[in-house]
Amino acid sequence: MGRVIDIISDLGEGFGLYEAADDASIIELVSSASVACGFHAGDPRTMAKAVYEAIKKGVGVGAHPGFPDLLGFGRRNISVTPWEVKTDVLYQLGALEAFVRVAGGKLQHICPHGSLGDLSMVDRECATAMLEAVIEFDPSLIIVTQAGELERLAREKGMKVAKLIFADRAYNDDGTLVSRRNSNAVILNKDIVIDRCVRMVIEGKVETITGKEIAVEGESILIHGDTVGSLTLAKDIKAALIDRGVEIKKLADWL
Amino acid sequence: MGRVIDIISDLGEGFGLYEAADDASIIELVSSASVACGFHAGDPRTMAKAVYEAIKKGVGVGAHPGFPDLLGFGRRNISVTPWEVKTDVLYQLGALEAFVRVAGGKLQHICPHGSLGDLSMVDRECATAMLEAVIEFDPSLIIVTQAGELERLAREKGMKVAKLIFADRAYNDDGTLVSRRNSNAVILNKDIVIDRCVRMVIEGKVETITGKEIAVEGESILIHGDTVGSLTLAKDIKAALIDRGVEIKKLADWL
Amino acid sequence: MGRVIDIISDLGEGFGLYEAADDASIIELVSSASVACGFHAGDPRTMAKAVYEAIKKGVGVGAHPGFPDLLGFGRRNISVTPWEVKTDVLYQLGALEAFVRVAGGKLQHICPHGSLGDLSMVDRECATAMLEAVIEFDPSLIIVTQAGELERLAREKGMKVAKLIFADRAYNDDGTLVSRRNSNAVILNKDIVIDRCVRMVIEGKVETITGKEIAVEGESILIHGDTVGSLTLAKDIKAALIDRGVEIKKLADWL
Amino acid sequence: MGRVIDIISDLGEGFGLYEAADDASIIELVSSASVACGFHAGDPRTMAKAVYEAIKKGVGVGAHPGFPDLLGFGRRNISVTPWEVKTDVLYQLGALEAFVRVAGGKLQHICPHGSLGDLSMVDRECATAMLEAVIEFDPSLIIVTQAGELERLAREKGMKVAKLIFADRAYNDDGTLVSRRNSNAVILNKDIVIDRCVRMVIEGKVETITGKEIAVEGESILIHGDTVGSLTLAKDIKAALIDRGVEIKKLADWL
Repeated sequence: MGRVIDIISDLGEGFGLYEAADDASIIELVSSASVACGFHAGDPRTMAKAVYEAIKKGVGVGAHPGFPDLLGFGRRNISVTPWEVKTDVLYQLGALEAFVRVAGGKLQHICPHGSLGDLSMVDRECATAMLEAVIEFDPSLIIVTQAGELERLAREKGMKVAKLIFADRAYNDDGTLVSRRNSNAVILNKDIVIDRCVRMVIEGKVETITGKEIAVEGESILIHGDTVGSLTLAKDIKAALIDRGVEIKKLADWL
Repeated sequence: MGRVIDIISDLGEGFGLYEAADDASIIELVSSASVACGFHAGDPRTMAKAVYEAIKKGVGVGAHPGFPDLLGFGRRNISVTPWEVKTDVLYQLGALEAFVRVAGGKLQHICPHGSLGDLSMVDRECATAMLEAVIEFDPSLIIVTQAGELERLAREKGMKVAKLIFADRAYNDDGTLVSRRNSNAVILNKDIVIDRCVRMVIEGKVETITGKEIAVEGESILIHGDTVGSLTLAKDIKAALIDRGVEIKKLADWL
Repeated sequence: MGRVIDIISDLGEGFGLYEAADDASIIELVSSASVACGFHAGDPRTMAKAVYEAIKKGVGVGAHPGFPDLLGFGRRNISVTPWEVKTDVLYQLGALEAFVRVAGGKLQHICPHGSLGDLSMVDRECATAMLEAVIEFDPSLIIVTQAGELERLAREKGMKVAKLIFADRAYNDDGTLVSRRNSNAVILNKDIVIDRCVRMVIEGKVETITGKEIAVEGESILIHGDTVGSLTLAKDIKAALIDRGVEIKKLADWL
Repeated sequence: MGRVIDIISDLGEGFGLYEAADDASIIELVSSASVACGFHAGDPRTMAKAVYEAIKKGVGVGAHPGFPDLLGFGRRNISVTPWEVKTDVLYQLGALEAFVRVAGGKLQHICPHGSLGDLSMVDRECATAMLEAVIEFDPSLIIVTQAGELERLAREKGMKVAKLIFADRAYNDDGTLVSRRNSNAVILNKDIVIDRCVRMVIEGKVETITGKEIAVEGESILIHGDTVGSLTLAKDIKAALIDRGVEIKKLADWL
């Protein structure tokens, strides 16, 4: 039986006249999309458009909540309380779901953005607050994340979790990503990236930065559409996976 | 049989540390509350608190969407397109409903704020866009408004409408309010305000600025809590109504 | 003696990670630049960078204040009072001048953006408030605008004024621009645009939308850098002007 | 010869319709005021009004820049780079100085707000970036701060520094303030507060939380106007100081 995988990307991360990525091309490649909710990026028009296009094409739609920091694109850490995390996430979930509902769809997942996502991986209080928001809002939502506190807590509470696979990022021996502050954090050779990606999906293994082979599990391959190069790479990864008999399907259809 | 009326106020119009009114006192007086949704006022914490307190006390909760203009408190007109109105309203409806849902309640109504409300009364395109948002989001929501385009269109589409009664405002002969630009727009004599209010509710009549008697219909008396005086007046109006056998009930219970 | 002209463009209209135009290419073409001040676009980093690059290359730096509406990029009208106009302009002038000062330069001009600019052309109160801000802040600033109230009032008060020339826009018989709502507002044929531009600068004449020839005066040709096409066109216009012996100089050097 | 002291308060920390404190009463008590610059609080109207009133009454006006976080009133830490600190401070200094200039005054000092202020006391990079902004903008500005990195660096660079005295806060043995997280951080007994304050100003000594007597130096007593109690306390402190022959004077007149 063939392996099934989800290809996921962020979507709708523009603001007003500003655009962040080539959304029209991304939507053709992915099976799931995490839509910005107006805090780190996104506005009611970008959200409506992203959600409508995604649902029209059968793409699974998720919320991509972030810190309220458009200026920093949600990538600056803010010293928030758990109550701020919970209410900020509830607000963003509700706002996005309105567009999903009127487009005739159903919210599939939540994938926290940037520094909020980073915090939820390492800070138990933040992860707890975020999960409280999700469970009270809609406990059927899939949690899309890297390994960490949010993943562990979500599994404890019996929620569905999809772990992210990073096609072009180097891994440490413990399965975490090599920090972007290191020069070798991103793998630039396209053929190597595709090979690694195919192997992670089919064999569940990857070679770490030290040359060790480790198990890597994941349900969603994260791709980007902010550069021409990232889109081309995503296309090639997708083609290589399909070529090996991997089926691309949104999370809601198989997880 | 006694007359039934709804007493309504805006709620949760603070932002961060800032407060706009004495919400704790307002909540004791009203049967319905229109909660700010983060655009002209309100943030996820003020919304969560206002919604939670309202639902705990059995107060009907509605959305109070406004223009995205915290600086102008939603009182400055912005030249928006119908698409902007529709998507701005959807975003705010969804955000607020998230808090209503997790508090175990159900959204009762929508009452547009400030310049967005004014526009919806006189601009057919704006009213149409707003109603599209409401109908696609939840057609059971009650439209709370003054007379105008929004009211007419809502009735055409078979929606429930509650018209606002203004306790201390002077009326023109055509039933519209005397503009605040006129010095006699607000009636200052407390006894007169209470008498007028009781008569509007029980007899459905009011004396206009020219001395003429006109019919006035309304289901929700609007009160304010931004000054000590407005709160005292609201208490006295409520007591006078109850004294005359009028029953105070949230819209969802009788409209 | 040859004709002298200023080539001007908006600059620094990004926000955070978002970019609005190819600033690095624009800066090579212009003699003056109007830098966004953080209200309709721009943030302290984009402003610092735009100002520093402009001053390094000897480009005249001006303020490009707009309405406080990042979401609408300052292109939506907001019903502001004269006091709001005056204080909003003062705030933006001061913020931008800080960067000009620390970069070792001197603020050259002010050119209001979008709907604020439009309002200043037709609304005497707005134009008056804007000029009060400029005169009290720095009366030596050059007012860069189209014909209208702002121009007339500025001349009355003895201020320097530079009128804008629009290379690719059709003109009405009264010298105003054909509205963008009309399909023929923008002239698409590149050769015609260049010819018109050269003629406006050298002969001070242009053919209107009705075929009539009118006088057109202006000191600053406005160019754009938001598309590859607009940049190429700007380069060709500049080359054609230099080819005819026109000298390109920032306003402060000759007005 | 009598001791001279400055009484200082934050001013103009409202936003739009929102008010944060009783500015009209504060202005009657202080010799210096730190005016919010639009990032953590304040808008062009609150700034214009605060600056105008202060200058009319001879109060020394300073900038009170904060993090760009109206929602958190600048009290949440944001992980900013030194470049962000420098440019954010320049922007706010320039914006405020515009109002000071048109009001016919001269900017006296800078006193960073909330989490930006806290960071500047403990983080050398932040303090360095802030001082670079100040020195390049106007090296004659007085740095108003608590003890820490900002103070040390400012003195190294030969700038004028005024240290803050906290009337109602408990001190640790090392001269730092007892954290607000501790229940005994604020001294509630009014007579004790006044006595301590007089002693700090006249004798330069204070009793710490452990009962030890330490030297405390400061040029500006910080007062608050956000509650009726804080204003009354400030009045009593001022009266007690004047009663002991202390002269109240803005920093620019004696430092």
